[in-house]
Amino acid sequence: MNAVVISQGRVSWEPRPDPVAGPHDLLVRIQAAGINGADLMQRAGHYPPPAGTPADQPGLECSGVVEAVGDQVRSFRPGDRVMALMAGAAQAELAAVHERHAMPVPEAMSAVEAGAFPEVFCTAHDALFTQGGLAMGDRVLVSGAAGGVGVAAVQLAVAAGATVIASARSRDRHPALAGLGATPVTPDQVPATGPYDVVLELVGAPSLATAIEAIAPWGRVVVIGTGAGSHLELDLGLLMRSRATLRASTLRNRSLEEKAVVVRRVEHHVLPLVARRVLRVPVEATYPFSQVQAAYERFAAGAKLGKLVLTAG
Amino acid sequence: MNAVVISQGRVSWEPRPDPVAGPHDLLVRIQAAGINGADLMQRAGHYPPPAGTPADQPGLECSGVVEAVGDQVRSFRPGDRVMALMAGAAQAELAAVHERHAMPVPEAMSAVEAGAFPEVFCTAHDALFTQGGLAMGDRVLVSGAAGGVGVAAVQLAVAAGATVIASARSRDRHPALAGLGATPVTPDQVPATGPYDVVLELVGAPSLATAIEAIAPWGRVVVIGTGAGSHLELDLGLLMRSRATLRASTLRNRSLEEKAVVVRRVEHHVLPLVARRVLRVPVEATYPFSQVQAAYERFAAGAKLGKLVLTAG
Repeated sequence: MNAVVISQGRVSWEPRPDPVAGPHDLLVRIQAAGINGADLMQRAGHYPPPAGTPADQPGLECSGVVEAVGDQVRSFRPGDRVMALMAGAAQAELAAVHERHAMPVPEAMSAVEAGAFPEVFCTAHDALFTQGGLAMGDRVLVSGAAGGVGVAAVQLAVAAGATVIASARSRDRHPALAGLGATPVTPDQVPATGPYDVVLELVGAPSLATAIEAIAPWGRVVVIGTGAGSHLELDLGLLMRSRATLRASTLRNRSLEEKAVVVRRVEHHVLPLVARRVLRVPVEATYPFSQVQAAYERFAAGAKLGKLVLTAG
Repeated sequence: MNAVVISQGRVSWEPRPDPVAGPHDLLVRIQAAGINGADLMQRAGHYPPPAGTPADQPGLECSGVVEAVGDQVRSFRPGDRVMALMAGAAQAELAAVHERHAMPVPEAMSAVEAGAFPEVFCTAHDALFTQGGLAMGDRVLVSGAAGGVGVAAVQLAVAAGATVIASARSRDRHPALAGLGATPVTPDQVPATGPYDVVLELVGAPSLATAIEAIAPWGRVVVIGTGAGSHLELDLGLLMRSRATLRASTLRNRSLEEKAVVVRRVEHHVLPLVARRVLRVPVEATYPFSQVQAAYERFAAGAKLGKLVLTAG
């Protein structure tokens, strides 16, 4: 098969050995695979994948059709449309995916949308609900709302009955965020639009320092992105007075079992809303796999609301 | 009645109007009342009590006998031995206590022990279990274990099946902490005795900065004391890699309903162990109420493992 391969800070589409599916795996013929920030970090050598995943093959999510199944697989059959959360190597013609990391693709969802769904929606759902305990009626700040995870988080929080404040530096993105049901603000407006029961921090320490000043009693702050800085000067007295919680996590370094639980939660709580078209995966552009270098450069240039997706087509 | 009264940085035993018990209150004739760090902060003008509590009458816990009950009270009758969590004014001859903030005193417990139980055990139980999610088999660090809350926390964690590391600067306190079932360490040994699933921080930012470096995956850090400093320099990347949670809280500024829930949890989960004498309230010394100034000075001098308790006797 061909796969996206990282070599000396560049990505290219090159021959690689076919993946070998184990007894619990699906062999998936990939139709589409989203690009995420982690792929670019991996390209730069900053985000090594967990053990067992090739360090030079990026890609955390894909969609496709099951071509074959291991003899212990119970949930899927050849011909099924699936999408999957992966620890790497999702940008290729074929992938071996543990059946518990795969989800069925709702009929209403295209292969391109499905290829850009698992990583951002699993990340956003885990952060907002499992880590942040978001519930109906909560006031939530999505700090850095214009990226893939941010757009997923805004939609999930709106769908769950929260009041959503979406912070994005570029005002160009504000109409689209308002269209998703959020109140768009610039970062300097964040103190005035609190207090926040939940803060999802996707930018880093500087914006977090502002948001945490506006945390509500019993508020929960969840940090999953620190691109703008990870050194936080924290007043514990402020946290004590608000009885607030600060947590931070990544999805990628969790165990296979933990990721399977995240995928099951998304399948149960999120896919019904995808099937009803309440939730959408905004796609900015698609690129054939062979143009992966151009796609990565476009991602690196920033300033997009929707996802960039590689396709086999 | 007489009550402990704060005036110009001093405490004295002076006449005050009797408290008036509302329909849900118990009028309690107080036998004993523990001294806590918050009382000394209040004496210094630093810890104003919540609205509705006299600012010049300290005391967060007491034991005594029910003298009369409001007409809506269902849980207690005159003559019952009770102990109570209060927002203030617990160091007096009489107190009006909401019935849901009171607990029965187990037969095996003296009035002096009971008077020094509610604040420290409610604080420690809430922090370790409700906030920290402590469970059997967890490895827990109690940072600042030699004080009243620390001694309660060590005993609760040991009783729940945790492995308990108790940090105390003074080696004089180590044998007593070992006697409670903990492994005593000095603060400089904290990095070497991790990783910790739960950290209960009672000292402040400097020791917290050390402990958080040794947090286990999915670890929970609960801060309830910042006497040694509240400014924390936090590496969010460290928190992300460990998927750890940092939370901070106080009991005193919570709503009446929230405190009632804390008291009910302690009644259900902790009192059975008090009744079986698995948990004890170490008492360092008792002082009659009239000697309250001497008792506070002794507390301020530090270096005690057990509680200092004022008594009506």
